[in-house]
Amino acid sequence: MQTELSKRLGIEHAVFGFTPFPAVAAAISRAGGFGVLGAVRYTAPDELERDLDWLDAHAEGRPYGLDVVMPAKKVEGVGEADVEAMIPEGHRRFVRDTLARHGVPELAEGEASGWRITGWMEQVARAQLDVAFDRPVKLLANALGSPPADVVARAHDHGVLVAALAGSARHARKHQEAGIDIVVAQGYEAGGHTGEIASMVLTPEVVEAVDPLPVLSAGGIGSGPQVAAAFSLGAQGVWLGSLWLTTTEADLHSPALTRKLLAAGSGDTVRSRALTGKPARQLRTGWTDAWDDPAGPGTLPMPLQGLLVAEAVSRIQKYEVEPLLGTPVGQIVGRMTSERSVQAVFDDLTRGFEQAVDRVNRIAGRSGQS
Amino acid sequence: MQTELSKRLGIEHAVFGFTPFPAVAAAISRAGGFGVLGAVRYTAPDELERDLDWLDAHAEGRPYGLDVVMPAKKVEGVGEADVEAMIPEGHRRFVRDTLARHGVPELAEGEASGWRITGWMEQVARAQLDVAFDRPVKLLANALGSPPADVVARAHDHGVLVAALAGSARHARKHQEAGIDIVVAQGYEAGGHTGEIASMVLTPEVVEAVDPLPVLSAGGIGSGPQVAAAFSLGAQGVWLGSLWLTTTEADLHSPALTRKLLAAGSGDTVRSRALTGKPARQLRTGWTDAWDDPAGPGTLPMPLQGLLVAEAVSRIQKYEVEPLLGTPVGQIVGRMTSERSVQAVFDDLTRGFEQAVDRVNRIAGRSGQS
Repeated sequence: MQTELSKRLGIEHAVFGFTPFPAVAAAISRAGGFGVLGAVRYTAPDELERDLDWLDAHAEGRPYGLDVVMPAKKVEGVGEADVEAMIPEGHRRFVRDTLARHGVPELAEGEASGWRITGWMEQVARAQLDVAFDRPVKLLANALGSPPADVVARAHDHGVLVAALAGSARHARKHQEAGIDIVVAQGYEAGGHTGEIASMVLTPEVVEAVDPLPVLSAGGIGSGPQVAAAFSLGAQGVWLGSLWLTTTEADLHSPALTRKLLAAGSGDTVRSRALTGKPARQLRTGWTDAWDDPAGPGTLPMPLQGLLVAEAVSRIQKYEVEPLLGTPVGQIVGRMTSERSVQAVFDDLTRGFEQAVDRVNRIAGRSGQS
Repeated sequence: MQTELSKRLGIEHAVFGFTPFPAVAAAISRAGGFGVLGAVRYTAPDELERDLDWLDAHAEGRPYGLDVVMPAKKVEGVGEADVEAMIPEGHRRFVRDTLARHGVPELAEGEASGWRITGWMEQVARAQLDVAFDRPVKLLANALGSPPADVVARAHDHGVLVAALAGSARHARKHQEAGIDIVVAQGYEAGGHTGEIASMVLTPEVVEAVDPLPVLSAGGIGSGPQVAAAFSLGAQGVWLGSLWLTTTEADLHSPALTRKLLAAGSGDTVRSRALTGKPARQLRTGWTDAWDDPAGPGTLPMPLQGLLVAEAVSRIQKYEVEPLLGTPVGQIVGRMTSERSVQAVFDDLTRGFEQAVDRVNRIAGRSGQS
């Protein structure tokens, strides 16, 4: 699975794997793909430093990347406390009531909330960049809009390629104007923040919109035939996130969550604002149902919703409160039915890809395949 | 584009085209595909008879099919008048008010509503079947659920294959149990009634669920690369509907609607219950906005909603009231940017397919392609 982009990056397969786990990112790069570590869950730069060093030591010299969440728009002089103060009391009460109704225990006194999405705050993301640029990171991805111009310039000065996610051709063109090197076309069926246009339509539309920039297809890809489909649509690579959540190298810290993922079907996700305030696909749970219920208070805009629910999500995860327990994941979750190693996933992807290419060649009447 | 199914049906390309227009269906079959005439807009059997005879005379001996809307569940002794009586007065008032707000003229006295979705009623659909079985129709498709067992048996007695649309693997398996021959996997991005699972995920899931039954991929397909993607995913054919709406052979009776379709982007559709009471993808308009507005009365269940809005939709179409003017169409509408003949569409599909196969072969390292 070699494209111009994979050759440029010096990788064997044009398969990009986004993951919050350094062990998974390292295994993806070792398997011949391109591991991208998600930085959004890191609040302290030294934790990211430690994990990137670990990743570098375990990638066997293969390239890897970092994914940050950096809004292009900057709100000067606004800190976490100011944002906290904007959250209405009625919403805080709704969180408390929902947790109480499901008997979710409190955290122990002094125990910090382990799960905070503070990586979205510009100051946090910039500190992460300082860490990244000191290390041999080869690609910087941004999940929300184009990164600021000075960040793009700094990346290019360091020889780092910049990728950005787009849910529409219009967003993709904005990235191109901002000097981005690679566009990730994130379809409706993807896990995490998504738009409403499905990969089958979005990928070729983005490919045509930003030509000759390389495009990665994201959303709905978890098997070799789906990789072949993305390449048919003009992608120069695929961007997979969900599929790694149930690999043996992943560490969800929750056997119950792993069980839920393995049991879920493609219809068991929902595109909800419950987690961050922007529509993000995730497992449908009692938690998303509560926020999506028209009788409830509804969600707050980003970043308020993320701050509002951070502690609650930590408690739900820590105590594995099954009816509320969820995670961002795409519709491909229906294909995640057993725990496998990252290498086994790659073997399955490449084998399935070859079979799909055989099938399409037969349909095209090109059976004398070399 | 030859698959086992296309060989079995004796067609050149495994491209199935669903259309309400006999001229389009005939042109699709003449171009080497398989034209399928939608019967839902026919209220009188003799009109369908006339159009099927015309189609047969213009298909140059190529095979074609008929698509009916027949619910598997039968409601004994309930006629149109009984259903009309179930519509609340508040909903009728909302229709009148919305039309008045946009200055939509009344139909002339005695002028019949030209646009009625009564084909969904079992008695209408059964009369249509009598017409179809008297003619050389080679495939019978059903848009809502499996057709009743006696209809499947009658089709098979006449040597007619039966296809049914499915939005999930579970629905697809039900069709298989009902003795259906072909499953159409209708993705989220498709025009008309759709589920929430996108084609990239749905097609391979349905292929695996009903193996060895042949599956057609529907939703998001309007170019050769998308056809190649569907074949990669295991489909034995593609089912296209939206793409024909702006062909020169189509007759929308509305230049304004054609203009709207040519101008619309992939983000200009919505999955709304406004037209039939079940979620159906269509152009987003002032009409769908009114029904989807939480401040409005909301839609009624099928078949009430369809009866409630039938006359209104006729008036909107007849007088081309642009802000309200819409039609079922998929996200592929963004690719429909010029009026072309059906043959030109086929030429584009086959050329784009070959290019996509070339691209995937290069990525697979199989450049010595015969």
